Amino acid sequence: MDFRPILLITGILLATLSVSMIFPLLVDIFYGNSDWKVFFLCMIWTGFFGGVLILTNMGHRFNLSVRQAFLLTSSSWLTIAFFAAFPLWLSELNLSFTDAFFESMSGITTTGSTVIVGLNHAPPGILLWRAILQWLGGIGIILMAMSVLPFLKVGGMQLFETELSEKEKAMPRLASMASSIGIIYVFITLACAILYQMTGMQPFDAIAHAMTTVSTGGFSTFDESFSHYHDPWTEIVCIIFMIMGGIPFVLYLKAVAGNTKPLFTDSQVRWFLSILITATLVLSFFLISHHQFTLGEAIRRSAFNVVSLVTGTGFINGDYNSWGVFPVSVFFFLMVVGGCAGSTSCGIKIFRFQVLYEVVKVQLNQLLYPNGVFIPHYNRKPMPSGVSISVMSFFFLYALSFTVIAMLLSLVGLDFITAMAGAATSISNVGPGLGDVIGPVESFQTLNDAAKWILSAGMLLGRLELFPLLILFTPAFWTK
Amino acid sequence: MDFRPILLITGILLATLSVSMIFPLLVDIFYGNSDWKVFFLCMIWTGFFGGVLILTNMGHRFNLSVRQAFLLTSSSWLTIAFFAAFPLWLSELNLSFTDAFFESMSGITTTGSTVIVGLNHAPPGILLWRAILQWLGGIGIILMAMSVLPFLKVGGMQLFETELSEKEKAMPRLASMASSIGIIYVFITLACAILYQMTGMQPFDAIAHAMTTVSTGGFSTFDESFSHYHDPWTEIVCIIFMIMGGIPFVLYLKAVAGNTKPLFTDSQVRWFLSILITATLVLSFFLISHHQFTLGEAIRRSAFNVVSLVTGTGFINGDYNSWGVFPVSVFFFLMVVGGCAGSTSCGIKIFRFQVLYEVVKVQLNQLLYPNGVFIPHYNRKPMPSGVSISVMSFFFLYALSFTVIAMLLSLVGLDFITAMAGAATSISNVGPGLGDVIGPVESFQTLNDAAKWILSAGMLLGRLELFPLLILFTPAFWTK
Repeated sequence: MDFRPILLITGILLATLSVSMIFPLLVDIFYGNSDWKVFFLCMIWTGFFGGVLILTNMGHRFNLSVRQAFLLTSSSWLTIAFFAAFPLWLSELNLSFTDAFFESMSGITTTGSTVIVGLNHAPPGILLWRAILQWLGGIGIILMAMSVLPFLKVGGMQLFETELSEKEKAMPRLASMASSIGIIYVFITLACAILYQMTGMQPFDAIAHAMTTVSTGGFSTFDESFSHYHDPWTEIVCIIFMIMGGIPFVLYLKAVAGNTKPLFTDSQVRWFLSILITATLVLSFFLISHHQFTLGEAIRRSAFNVVSLVTGTGFINGDYNSWGVFPVSVFFFLMVVGGCAGSTSCGIKIFRFQVLYEVVKVQLNQLLYPNGVFIPHYNRKPMPSGVSISVMSFFFLYALSFTVIAMLLSLVGLDFITAMAGAATSISNVGPGLGDVIGPVESFQTLNDAAKWILSAGMLLGRLELFPLLILFTPAFWTK
Repeated sequence: MDFRPILLITGILLATLSVSMIFPLLVDIFYGNSDWKVFFLCMIWTGFFGGVLILTNMGHRFNLSVRQAFLLTSSSWLTIAFFAAFPLWLSELNLSFTDAFFESMSGITTTGSTVIVGLNHAPPGILLWRAILQWLGGIGIILMAMSVLPFLKVGGMQLFETELSEKEKAMPRLASMASSIGIIYVFITLACAILYQMTGMQPFDAIAHAMTTVSTGGFSTFDESFSHYHDPWTEIVCIIFMIMGGIPFVLYLKAVAGNTKPLFTDSQVRWFLSILITATLVLSFFLISHHQFTLGEAIRRSAFNVVSLVTGTGFINGDYNSWGVFPVSVFFFLMVVGGCAGSTSCGIKIFRFQVLYEVVKVQLNQLLYPNGVFIPHYNRKPMPSGVSISVMSFFFLYALSFTVIAMLLSLVGLDFITAMAGAATSISNVGPGLGDVIGPVESFQTLNDAAKWILSAGMLLGRLELFPLLILFTPAFWTK
């Protein structure tokens, strides 16, 4: 295999990462925090590696094979998580390298699980760095979901290849789309930051939270996350932008180009919103009947937490762990649902549930009419062949990966609910877990190192939609 | 729809149930227990209903449509569980009807979860009745898996339709096969009972345990299950016959006919044994390294519990709940694995994992070679079209059913691990759960009525391989 294009692109990504360190550096200088030296050092070191990779591999034809694309997908995220961990490791937080890598992986995969206790007094540079990582991870996954994953036909993503290439051949592909999407992403983030500030956030917190809201990341600048504000308007802004982060960004692209219809008729978006509304209503009803919440309070609490967990953001506005077993069970299963494909959210994703629903419907009809011919549909069009098998394989591998991660976590000593919730929250890139150890008002600090490495692997696996990482472990990948 | 054939067959099954009540009746008379009157009453009442159904629906052509077969499958198991509950309800145990129905459903579905505390002093008739229910449920499911389910193409069972109808056309179908399988079933049960007695069991206990071992049911005549004996030889006999109960009975039929080869070359059996051996070794290693078990003790404990849970029997030889989190996690996932198709065991079943494995393998190859043509195989033959989708739909519905049952259980107040383990153990027809409430040394007695009804529904759903029950809830089933 020719590794040069892989190394070249990795170099470009590292250079980008290096450049983005300028922001926390400047912020630390502005606030007079000595950590700016750490960012300066890491910027040089990351930039140097990136530069070397670019210079030694430049001038080759940029035509990735399938294998190269798979390897690039996995290796680039891993490399970035590695280099992004250095500022966290060397900062005045005194994190171990395990902790720094966990935090970095949690950031870049937009998970939002944190090992840092004492965010309220953490250096501003570090707080911004965590937000930038999630923000970069968010745009990274959108671009990957629109370009590489459909090309690789990962877990049914070819459904969106068709959508892009056949229906809109005129629309230029990745290079120019990347910049359009990038502009939209920046715009949405700015809008979110301004609205946050209008509800009373400090400018710095508004920007940091906007970056981690739109990317459905979930890192906060406070230990208590959104409980710090306890303001309905702040939470409403948050809910709206978490939902926006969970919608396919290609629909915004279309909307900006004048075609707003798909934003309202896309079946994936409709399912997504229906699931959010249904879950919110069920939980609100439970909170009113079992805990004497007022209607407004019940809806506010439910909506915030449902949206936060389904989109995999992971912001907290209170300890849902204390609501009783039913909400905890519901949240456990909601965690793996995820948002729409082509958004910043993770999890199994809505379109896969739509495909599974269609396949089961066809299956049941087939059982009743063995000689009938039934064709599964997606978004009012017949599903391309291979999509259903692809999605179902993904679902099985998701269940299997969940099983393996949960067993490994229990092997290294975590209790049952922590192991189960840890597996779910990492592979679905949600953030907080359930139970007393990694629950919403706790952090991942107290876990042992082995657990942190397992969870880091789970986050990467989930973020890459399983296949690109798992395929590297098949002998077929490495043999001709 | 013409309900007459359904009512006729239900009548025949009820008549069979009625006749089988003669055994506990005689046993109660023999031991001088007044419960014989209850069995006499129930025998009359069940026989009367069965007789009426037979007489009023006789003389029709016996040619079931697909719809009729689905309805019959679900309604017959439900009806039998209902009528079989009466002796339990009216006996001197003073069970509520909920408890009696739960116990009856747990029996006929070969689950083995019990609500009765004080088995050691329970009337012998009742103990025998519980064993008979599991034994009848065991042979019932074997026959169903060889005839109705492949015909209905339920969850990939058409794989075995092909096997039976194409390769062995000469072999007469259900009617004569039923009697051959029945004879083999009786023979294996007798062999088990004799061996149990040789290891020191009382004749009555040996027969009752043999009936619930071969049917992988798990009801015991003692509260403490196999901990009552603490005898290695008893446990070895038990392990052997639980495994035999988990192997496709059609292979015994072939072996008796002189063709013993499939028993050793069948890929499902090989996978089944490999899973049992691997899990036993992993757990033994854990028990030795973490709990200072001796090698023999570790293997004995692991093997017994692994075989008991994978086959869905549910016998206990100690409190595995106290072994720590890792074994509990492993058992949680092992519970849903199940034995082979066409055996008395339940769960997802080995062949479905083989199909899923094949599909994923093909899928990964297809990702690497987009233009290659890869065909999934089963048992060294290309898989018939439709099987993979069918199996994957089953897997998804299994996960979905598990989710719904677990959420409902937590809604009615069960804690997290009880709800999760309860959902797994009921839908997979295992028996014991995990945790402090329904764990191996506990019973289901303390659960509330709502939970017991949910679990009963879960047992039926799992035993019928989901589709026959779920399809009744689709509008398409009831419209022309």
